[in-house]
Amino acid sequence: MSSVTNRIAADRLRAFTARAFVAAGMPADHAATCAELMVRADLTGADGHGVFRLPQYIRRIKGGAVNLRPRLVVAREAAGMALVDGDNGMGHVVMRFATETAIAKAKTAGVAWVGVRGSNHAGPASLYAAMPLAHDMIGLYLAVGNANHMAPWGGIDLLLSTNPIAVGVPGYEEGPIVLDMATTVAAYGKVKTRAQRGETLPEGWMIDRQGNSLTDPRRAAEGLLLPIGGYKGYGLALIFGLLAGTLNGAAMGKDVVDFNADDSSATNTGHAIVAISLSAFGEVDEFKRRVDRLVRDIRESRKMPGVERILLPGEQSRAKFEDRSRDGIPLPSSLLESLDKLARELKIPGVLESAS
Amino acid sequence: MSSVTNRIAADRLRAFTARAFVAAGMPADHAATCAELMVRADLTGADGHGVFRLPQYIRRIKGGAVNLRPRLVVAREAAGMALVDGDNGMGHVVMRFATETAIAKAKTAGVAWVGVRGSNHAGPASLYAAMPLAHDMIGLYLAVGNANHMAPWGGIDLLLSTNPIAVGVPGYEEGPIVLDMATTVAAYGKVKTRAQRGETLPEGWMIDRQGNSLTDPRRAAEGLLLPIGGYKGYGLALIFGLLAGTLNGAAMGKDVVDFNADDSSATNTGHAIVAISLSAFGEVDEFKRRVDRLVRDIRESRKMPGVERILLPGEQSRAKFEDRSRDGIPLPSSLLESLDKLARELKIPGVLESAS
Repeated sequence: MSSVTNRIAADRLRAFTARAFVAAGMPADHAATCAELMVRADLTGADGHGVFRLPQYIRRIKGGAVNLRPRLVVAREAAGMALVDGDNGMGHVVMRFATETAIAKAKTAGVAWVGVRGSNHAGPASLYAAMPLAHDMIGLYLAVGNANHMAPWGGIDLLLSTNPIAVGVPGYEEGPIVLDMATTVAAYGKVKTRAQRGETLPEGWMIDRQGNSLTDPRRAAEGLLLPIGGYKGYGLALIFGLLAGTLNGAAMGKDVVDFNADDSSATNTGHAIVAISLSAFGEVDEFKRRVDRLVRDIRESRKMPGVERILLPGEQSRAKFEDRSRDGIPLPSSLLESLDKLARELKIPGVLESAS
Repeated sequence: MSSVTNRIAADRLRAFTARAFVAAGMPADHAATCAELMVRADLTGADGHGVFRLPQYIRRIKGGAVNLRPRLVVAREAAGMALVDGDNGMGHVVMRFATETAIAKAKTAGVAWVGVRGSNHAGPASLYAAMPLAHDMIGLYLAVGNANHMAPWGGIDLLLSTNPIAVGVPGYEEGPIVLDMATTVAAYGKVKTRAQRGETLPEGWMIDRQGNSLTDPRRAAEGLLLPIGGYKGYGLALIFGLLAGTLNGAAMGKDVVDFNADDSSATNTGHAIVAISLSAFGEVDEFKRRVDRLVRDIRESRKMPGVERILLPGEQSRAKFEDRSRDGIPLPSSLLESLDKLARELKIPGVLESAS
């Protein structure tokens, strides 16, 4: 049964992921970065963006789609911004570099906006929005998704991706607040999960090209993901794509490569990461205490009948992070098998085997 | 009948609005700024944010809620940011100053983020997101709304406003693209309009405190506006409020003053305006042509059955701007009467009277 899950320690999964990348030809430091960030995605519950993606990433590396020895450069720069060219490197490597650039610049500029082109799929948006938190900074991240599953409002051509936004805001004793959301009602990964389980889709996730509700996930390929708030979510996906893609000379609209269906083309993925230094705006602790007060006001406010707890963005991910750091990351047997198959292809020890 | 509308020339309405503010004690230059921006709101079709607000603004000025002679200052500053203290001045005056500050800083910094506290209601978000366009810049604006009509997801206490986002992106022959949206399915003004007309509300706009659909606009006071995309819109409203309010030391959550119901308290309204210089990221015309191509790809893409035209954000506002600049701004008789009543109170010539 593919529904059996196994708890794998993060260290073990990290080591496996790194040796898979190294076996595929990646330098050890980049492999370590990718492994660390992919396993962090799994720890925070972003299951569709963690090691689940490893076979696909390796396939695209072998297909020549990704540059394993990219020359990461700041192509343009001013006091409050930088434009990073990722030279078609792994998205995680490029985005770590871009985020570190934003943090370094924000230390003197107060706020720094870093655009990115020539990147690749970089995992969940929250990874990068959360990096500035440790520096007493707010992180704001936008990206162009790596497959178009949405049409402009009123249209049927797939010209837009689920372009996400993520924002991380530090608290004092509470938080951090970490929002990470696609601009569609449901992410495409959720549709795929329902299809695997043979479940129908809730109304409002997808429509077909006549505008009728589509609830059979086996028909997903002929469907369109619906944006949140109708035309509003279309507007957000478009604007986030302009800021993360078009502004940086990265792919947007027709130029977006469906990286699920293509193992050899560069995606020219675009991102934007903004680091906002709290100390530029005032007393850091004072800000954090205001966030705490807001969090508590919300959490302790009156609830609808039947509601157990009012959640803050990022609260569930943090609980998963604690649980999984302690007890291991739950991997379905089907995923574990596909990782072991990958190990045999790469001639490396499998997830549960010793790496020595 | 209040449904009769009159077309009033923009110049006439601007002159009337300015003399009303001057009669209420505002310096002439600030009155001119407020009049210009309020009438611009009407020209672009933001009817609920233009001269419709004048009686309320004057009432709050007379109630001592607004400082007519604010000392606008950059309270804190670094290369990529500034924090403007509006000293409780009129929102339009404060936000024009803040946006000009952002534009000036972005000329050297490439990107500049300006936070604002101590401001007031400033009209539609699009006004400020569009100001950087003439400087070949993208504008991004966030604000904390001036009345809480939304609860946290799962809650019933009104702790959140319809905190909007607006983004303006220049094109070459097309555009500009100007998105301006609240994070709720419907803005509260739309509910009020339906109530005035005796119409019911569409499902999905509001719920009552048991979570049931609320479609009778006369019951709006006991209802909650629904966020777009459910918990996602709640997350956006929260994050935009943190960035535009909490970060700047402006009101957010419980501290938000309902300025519709209060004529004497300072609102400490918060905003954020970001100016992004296109030339910092690359060739300006090249960027604009990429925007044009994207706009055309979207507009010319295949349509759902029954859809006449695929719209880009800002397209309808631009059409209204052209129509109203030429033929005048349509004011319902009821609004015209309330403005003439205001004129009598202020002992100034009415909208249709000569000002000489």
